[in-house]
Amino acid sequence: MIEHMDVAVFGAGRIGTIHAGNLARHARARLRYVADVNAAAAQTLAERHGARTSSVEDALADPAVRAVMICSSTDTHADLILRAAAAGKAIFCEKPVDLDVERARACAAAVRKTGVTCMIGFQRRFDPTFAALKQRLDAGEIGVPEMLVITSRDPAPPPASYIAHSGGVFKDMLIHDFDIFRWILGGEAVSVHATGGCPGLPDIAAAGDLSHTAVTLRTSTGALCQINTSRRAAYGYDQRFEVLGSRGLLQAGNVRPTQVTAWSEQSISSDKPEAFFLERYRDAYALEIEHFLDALSNGTPVRTTIEDGIKALELAELATQSWREGRALSIA
Amino acid sequence: MIEHMDVAVFGAGRIGTIHAGNLARHARARLRYVADVNAAAAQTLAERHGARTSSVEDALADPAVRAVMICSSTDTHADLILRAAAAGKAIFCEKPVDLDVERARACAAAVRKTGVTCMIGFQRRFDPTFAALKQRLDAGEIGVPEMLVITSRDPAPPPASYIAHSGGVFKDMLIHDFDIFRWILGGEAVSVHATGGCPGLPDIAAAGDLSHTAVTLRTSTGALCQINTSRRAAYGYDQRFEVLGSRGLLQAGNVRPTQVTAWSEQSISSDKPEAFFLERYRDAYALEIEHFLDALSNGTPVRTTIEDGIKALELAELATQSWREGRALSIA
Amino acid sequence: MIEHMDVAVFGAGRIGTIHAGNLARHARARLRYVADVNAAAAQTLAERHGARTSSVEDALADPAVRAVMICSSTDTHADLILRAAAAGKAIFCEKPVDLDVERARACAAAVRKTGVTCMIGFQRRFDPTFAALKQRLDAGEIGVPEMLVITSRDPAPPPASYIAHSGGVFKDMLIHDFDIFRWILGGEAVSVHATGGCPGLPDIAAAGDLSHTAVTLRTSTGALCQINTSRRAAYGYDQRFEVLGSRGLLQAGNVRPTQVTAWSEQSISSDKPEAFFLERYRDAYALEIEHFLDALSNGTPVRTTIEDGIKALELAELATQSWREGRALSIA
Amino acid sequence: MIEHMDVAVFGAGRIGTIHAGNLARHARARLRYVADVNAAAAQTLAERHGARTSSVEDALADPAVRAVMICSSTDTHADLILRAAAAGKAIFCEKPVDLDVERARACAAAVRKTGVTCMIGFQRRFDPTFAALKQRLDAGEIGVPEMLVITSRDPAPPPASYIAHSGGVFKDMLIHDFDIFRWILGGEAVSVHATGGCPGLPDIAAAGDLSHTAVTLRTSTGALCQINTSRRAAYGYDQRFEVLGSRGLLQAGNVRPTQVTAWSEQSISSDKPEAFFLERYRDAYALEIEHFLDALSNGTPVRTTIEDGIKALELAELATQSWREGRALSIA
Repeated sequence: MIEHMDVAVFGAGRIGTIHAGNLARHARARLRYVADVNAAAAQTLAERHGARTSSVEDALADPAVRAVMICSSTDTHADLILRAAAAGKAIFCEKPVDLDVERARACAAAVRKTGVTCMIGFQRRFDPTFAALKQRLDAGEIGVPEMLVITSRDPAPPPASYIAHSGGVFKDMLIHDFDIFRWILGGEAVSVHATGGCPGLPDIAAAGDLSHTAVTLRTSTGALCQINTSRRAAYGYDQRFEVLGSRGLLQAGNVRPTQVTAWSEQSISSDKPEAFFLERYRDAYALEIEHFLDALSNGTPVRTTIEDGIKALELAELATQSWREGRALSIA
Repeated sequence: MIEHMDVAVFGAGRIGTIHAGNLARHARARLRYVADVNAAAAQTLAERHGARTSSVEDALADPAVRAVMICSSTDTHADLILRAAAAGKAIFCEKPVDLDVERARACAAAVRKTGVTCMIGFQRRFDPTFAALKQRLDAGEIGVPEMLVITSRDPAPPPASYIAHSGGVFKDMLIHDFDIFRWILGGEAVSVHATGGCPGLPDIAAAGDLSHTAVTLRTSTGALCQINTSRRAAYGYDQRFEVLGSRGLLQAGNVRPTQVTAWSEQSISSDKPEAFFLERYRDAYALEIEHFLDALSNGTPVRTTIEDGIKALELAELATQSWREGRALSIA
Repeated sequence: MIEHMDVAVFGAGRIGTIHAGNLARHARARLRYVADVNAAAAQTLAERHGARTSSVEDALADPAVRAVMICSSTDTHADLILRAAAAGKAIFCEKPVDLDVERARACAAAVRKTGVTCMIGFQRRFDPTFAALKQRLDAGEIGVPEMLVITSRDPAPPPASYIAHSGGVFKDMLIHDFDIFRWILGGEAVSVHATGGCPGLPDIAAAGDLSHTAVTLRTSTGALCQINTSRRAAYGYDQRFEVLGSRGLLQAGNVRPTQVTAWSEQSISSDKPEAFFLERYRDAYALEIEHFLDALSNGTPVRTTIEDGIKALELAELATQSWREGRALSIA
Repeated sequence: MIEHMDVAVFGAGRIGTIHAGNLARHARARLRYVADVNAAAAQTLAERHGARTSSVEDALADPAVRAVMICSSTDTHADLILRAAAAGKAIFCEKPVDLDVERARACAAAVRKTGVTCMIGFQRRFDPTFAALKQRLDAGEIGVPEMLVITSRDPAPPPASYIAHSGGVFKDMLIHDFDIFRWILGGEAVSVHATGGCPGLPDIAAAGDLSHTAVTLRTSTGALCQINTSRRAAYGYDQRFEVLGSRGLLQAGNVRPTQVTAWSEQSISSDKPEAFFLERYRDAYALEIEHFLDALSNGTPVRTTIEDGIKALELAELATQSWREGRALSIA
């Protein structure tokens, strides 16, 4: 007899919809409540999966609710984490914890104090390709990792209105890449240098942000990481990294929708990468929910903790400072 | 308000389990009954998805049942098709319709007479890669198709006991490839030549069958098809084809579990293909069920009819004869 | 002190020009004479490399000439082989030995009797990719070879006038593929089936020949070979083969001019294969000349003998017969 | 009637041997003299190509000598350039011009004053893959270039003794990459940041140099360049770059010795990249000599001037300073 775990989803937008669907398809979970300031969106999502709408208060007050998934806008994350922790609910929260590092640290303190499980949505660690690479790296296949090169590009820039409230590209976009850096090289940064530009995207410059960035990190062991990102890639969503080790290289490539190759008078061509993150990380989103539910069932730790969320946020803040001040920063 | 469609699954083995899972995850279907001569298997599968076990008789007698999925052993297919058609149920049946062409034709006649929907499980037509290739071919991307080369290899041979009752490799294994031939070249064969051998697999020779085959088909327009198959491929399940047209080539490649590439002192290497058909055609199995349910909902025709099943079976029979008689056959 | 070997080239056409250039660049060879019925062509080629024009008679009469390269039209091969053998010259002759098997056998007899070295220009065996595959196959990397699939396509058909005197596609084009079959599977055919058509190329049908062929060969050990060829491939010269063994597969791919990959809004694309045989086999032509000169210097046997030429020719003749008679042929 | 151009080669080491061979094979050049402090090496190389040994003095004094190729050790370059310019000879000089920027500038001044042709051996610009990419970039295929990522790794580190006199990794190894940066992005750097480490290679750290580097450059238009290099790559010589433009991406990949792919029980594998620069840039070395000779024959400018050599050297010096001082540098 399988016991179902009741879950409330806060936020019925794009990513909340993904998570609710994965919950609904999961044999062990039951989507109980959907809460959103947009009542119609909450209603639609709840109906699709036989759940009910609710306020955050009511959901947190229901003792049947074992876990909450925080998929609402970034500025609500910290408050919801604090309230959910106080209510003793297990928490899954989308990145970033908060744009302000101090507030994020306060959340982490609350999580530690209450002892609730809290997982941050760094879904890339659950991507089958990235996870397989990590496993082979840990198994020693290429010896000691020495250099990591991350390419991370969105297909098209968000609207200027989004940029203005995003916290800047380092917190909004590269936070995932900073997490990959820590996960793959397995150490903390001792220096950060970040620079960038807005070639061809003056609106982003006008909003005081960068469309293209180039970040360099160094760890205490002398391992290096270069991250290059762009808000625009005509060919789609580009998510690759490769790690050089003392005995070889492991490379994580993009995922293509199909394996069709066309040979024409012009060239030999294959599919572009998956269009954007919802497609590229479709499996990863399902697998991270499965991991979260497994951790709750088995009482095992989650792979991406709130501490990981804070470490990535700190790097994003340092990168922002490095860029603004035009200098490399050492980390004490 | 979504209306659910009740379905009975006959056969709780490997493929029945796949189809039942896809039905259970589908928003519009409801798995109502599972029937199997192995009562324990039926029980396990039914429980997993909140369905009930039943006899075939009872399932067919229940007016709530809209459709049946025939996933039992090949020798039961014809009988179940005839009974389901008589009961007015929509039918999804795994290939082959029957090992005997005459019996298969009788089934088709019954389907025509009763007017029920009957779809044969040629899941490859629903594989995202194969389907995308077909769409591009139909859109004229490479002009007129002139030559099709199919490579179809299993990772390891089935046990000799299976071979003995399989109807022979052409009906058991190549039937899918004969369907691909008809689907891609869009015409019927006017000549068939088949040969083969059992290099390194004497057990299969002893069972009077072939482990490796080489088949050549020609259509009335002069288009050619070569099929090469093997019951054993050390590197996994190999499912590729390529079609040459007057203006280019379209190639359908294997699917790899991950996009990791390893660069070592020896070589640059990537994943082998998916292990076997359950993995390779995982998406295809889900998509064919979706297609079947859509066809029932919308009253539209199915893509893989019982006539397709019979045409493929006829080619399998001709290929068997060609091999046994050591000669090429013309088709009147 | 390096001793130079003097060579005469008979035929100043496309392939004679290639061989003369490779001789001229070779440290150990000296191009002494060029003979051609087209005196201007002979003159141009001779001048380019500091050689002299001559008649065949004079070249064969000059004791300084150690070897001759027969690059003239097919109908002159047999006569020139016989005369060169009689003159005691080492012979390099382009394929085919002759369109008539009996005449070719007479040439082989003369070669055996006089004991001169005679190498046939199956340059594919010297292609770095094909040769590396063969070496790995012989080293046992994939166990025993069981099935060979050859794809061999020209970019565009020759003029109808050429077709008419070509001896037919099996002798003109597939002779190379028959040689690959023997070389890779390491055995002789016990059955041959050939068929074909002229989809979209009615001029070739009108000339009584095939533009597209599909050939199946079987060896005494049960190993199979499928060859598919076309006189037209919009995407260029397609020269691939793959061999399945009991422990894996070895695949020889096309060669691309550059390693540039373009990622666009439409697709990810790379170069088409090399344009035609002069580009694709550029290295192979140089390496076969080097092999020929090495064999002469060292008194070692050549890799592609006149017997190989005759075996391939016999298969071409059987394939022609199989196609004409519409039946599979057993080879006693 | 072809007029031959007489050339003297200074330096009979590894690269001098390559250039001498390419000269000897060239239809329009004649290798006249080889000069080297190692008389035996000069003698061997001269004999191989029918040239004579000579002193630098005598070679420069011979009015028949049209051009000299400076392939001797780096510390001799500046002196030989000055003497050759004074003698009115066309100059081909290996990189770097000199380890000291001031001396290099003095050479450039002498070249300008005497008006002799002077080409620096940045052979990568002549690599067929890199050159094709550049041509497509210039044709506007991907719009405006925005970001360049260069991966440049040697298979194994040089001996410590070499490191000590190399001028440091930025001048010795990355000078090629700095040239690629200028060539591909078509602008000059306005900022440089360089860092690095010696993970696993303590001997290089002990010599005061870096084994692994990470460099970031920015141009006045906001275009970015990241370079990652390593003195060691277990899988061979890694020479790739990719440039992101407003409309797509162009990627230059490694060159593999053969196109064999092996499918085994473990993986699907292909050849590692070419072993090292002599193999990888074999064609590039021949093509740069051809370009040099063409420029002399036609009176056209060379593609890689001494000014290019100095610009790359300046970037190498700035990168060295950036690393030593641990800070990003702005370029006035």
